Amino acid sequence: MRRFEVRTTVRQQFVEITDLVREAVAASGIAHGICIVYVPHTTAAVTVNENADPDVVHDMTLWLNRVIPQDQPGFRHGEGNSDAHLKASLIGSSVTLVIDQGSLVLGRWQGVYFVECDGPRRREVIVQAVGS
Amino acid sequence: MRRFEVRTTVRQQFVEITDLVREAVAASGIAHGICIVYVPHTTAAVTVNENADPDVVHDMTLWLNRVIPQDQPGFRHGEGNSDAHLKASLIGSSVTLVIDQGSLVLGRWQGVYFVECDGPRRREVIVQAVGS
Amino acid sequence: MRRFEVRTTVRQQFVEITDLVREAVAASGIAHGICIVYVPHTTAAVTVNENADPDVVHDMTLWLNRVIPQDQPGFRHGEGNSDAHLKASLIGSSVTLVIDQGSLVLGRWQGVYFVECDGPRRREVIVQAVGS
Repeated sequence: MRRFEVRTTVRQQFVEITDLVREAVAASGIAHGICIVYVPHTTAAVTVNENADPDVVHDMTLWLNRVIPQDQPGFRHGEGNSDAHLKASLIGSSVTLVIDQGSLVLGRWQGVYFVECDGPRRREVIVQAVGS
Repeated sequence: MRRFEVRTTVRQQFVEITDLVREAVAASGIAHGICIVYVPHTTAAVTVNENADPDVVHDMTLWLNRVIPQDQPGFRHGEGNSDAHLKASLIGSSVTLVIDQGSLVLGRWQGVYFVECDGPRRREVIVQAVGS
Repeated sequence: MRRFEVRTTVRQQFVEITDLVREAVAASGIAHGICIVYVPHTTAAVTVNENADPDVVHDMTLWLNRVIPQDQPGFRHGEGNSDAHLKASLIGSSVTLVIDQGSLVLGRWQGVYFVECDGPRRREVIVQAVGS
């Protein structure tokens, strides 16, 4: 199991962590198997998406903030970040990835993103690999 | 593989199952690996989110029912629960978690929730652990 | 690790791939463990949902296109498919499933669906099983 830190700088942010995940997979020594990238937080998530054009995460952020705004009629949670909890459960607290021949198998345009939904904060990501 | 039952009492409900998952992981004998919590239903889901303040799941329920209402123009499915199928696919039918030193690795505020979307019903949850 | 091809015929489409996943699991020789169905694309996803009544995926498609329309004010991504990237991250690029006694464990009404969000295209799906 490997842990690493991610520092975020704004409230809603996609931070690419593909290289950190690749390093953790290489360090695991697993040649064939799967790996989980896990976020031990309830107002952040992790996803796989395009890492070529930064406009993609711009547009995703725009939609997320439009459809899941921070202040909504009827919200009760005193910390005022229920939108972030919602985004965390919809995007998910982990991604599961394939390891083949000792390397992460990603599509040509895929990157792994830490998704901050209530930043800026200092966050943690855990990578665990299983297989042979 | 372990199975356990969850009984729900209302149509949309978050039921915390963290202790049941911990017991299944302990019973598996896996010290280092991952575990999947799987829901074998198409109108229920499973997620990881805050287990400290019950207002968080209140607010998540409010948003889910507001943005994915049960009755929508154009819906055809005769059982009238397409909203529940949507929630199931958006939240997801499984969560994958890390096992380290024989225990589930969760963040300080994280709990595992069974998410009923078309209750009340008697439901089933499956836990499978892999590793060494 | 097994790869197979999926061809889609319209822009937004649910294609059932349960039988292909079952074949990959059987070919893996894993009796007890888990399997990941992974989509190496950023405008497609994979989910588990009902495979009995085709009206379910009709209604899911209707909601997805209504709440995440293709053209939205403020979208910048030049390819014009940011909605597909959003659907991919919300539904997810993988599903994790349980293998018991050499077979996939699915609920009575569950099927595995490849979710095309920017078709028609020729796509790829990867299945990786781990366990004993």
